[in-house]
Amino acid sequence: MGDDKQQIRDLIETWAQASAAGDLDKILSLMDEDAIFLVAGHPPMRGRKEFAAQFKTAVEQVRIEATNDIQEIEISGDLAYCRNNLTVTLTPLKGGAPNRRTGFTLTIFRRKEGGNWVLSRDANLLSEAAE
Amino acid sequence: MGDDKQQIRDLIETWAQASAAGDLDKILSLMDEDAIFLVAGHPPMRGRKEFAAQFKTAVEQVRIEATNDIQEIEISGDLAYCRNNLTVTLTPLKGGAPNRRTGFTLTIFRRKEGGNWVLSRDANLLSEAAE
Repeated sequence: MGDDKQQIRDLIETWAQASAAGDLDKILSLMDEDAIFLVAGHPPMRGRKEFAAQFKTAVEQVRIEATNDIQEIEISGDLAYCRNNLTVTLTPLKGGAPNRRTGFTLTIFRRKEGGNWVLSRDANLLSEAAE
Repeated sequence: MGDDKQQIRDLIETWAQASAAGDLDKILSLMDEDAIFLVAGHPPMRGRKEFAAQFKTAVEQVRIEATNDIQEIEISGDLAYCRNNLTVTLTPLKGGAPNRRTGFTLTIFRRKEGGNWVLSRDANLLSEAAE
């Protein structure tokens, strides 16, 4: 169980590093084929294809820096959830003020047949950070 | 497993009915002692005590009507999650226009030692509904 929690922590940290590096293939390897991303006020983003399209558009315009402050990880069988206090800073590549969003995420991870954990569902409650 | 899913569906429906009826004790019986409720832009609401205080204030002012459209329930061992498309209408008791919020929730349920499922974590992504 301890190893599973560490695997999930590593996944979350690797995700942040791959986002900063613009490494889409790495991020796609960390999510389930049918992953669903929930944010307020928009339809859910579904699956690797939609994620890839949005990520490509984003990294043409901004550098993505994420800081994780994991509050808890709980696991039962092949299902886990993580509550994370996340800050994401988007810095325009062409200059201009960075946009900083902060808040909680509640994320579901699933253990695949090979034993690897992947992100399955993500609820993103980030809002504009106060300066 | 089928019975567990039905228990969780029933819990969600009972929660909505108890909200409309202002039945705080019923709702408290459906959540874990240390339940955490996440919404954007606010600190998390923690535990039965904080929930009770907010609920009491709310039901003095509004009638709460919730409509659930459950998208999926997945269970592994003693942990489950539900993705729900929720609409909440708050109607002022003293008259005035109702406030309607709609969007997704991602909710963690936990099976307690006695076998009953309770709400453990809730991410609420509802936003002002378009008219």
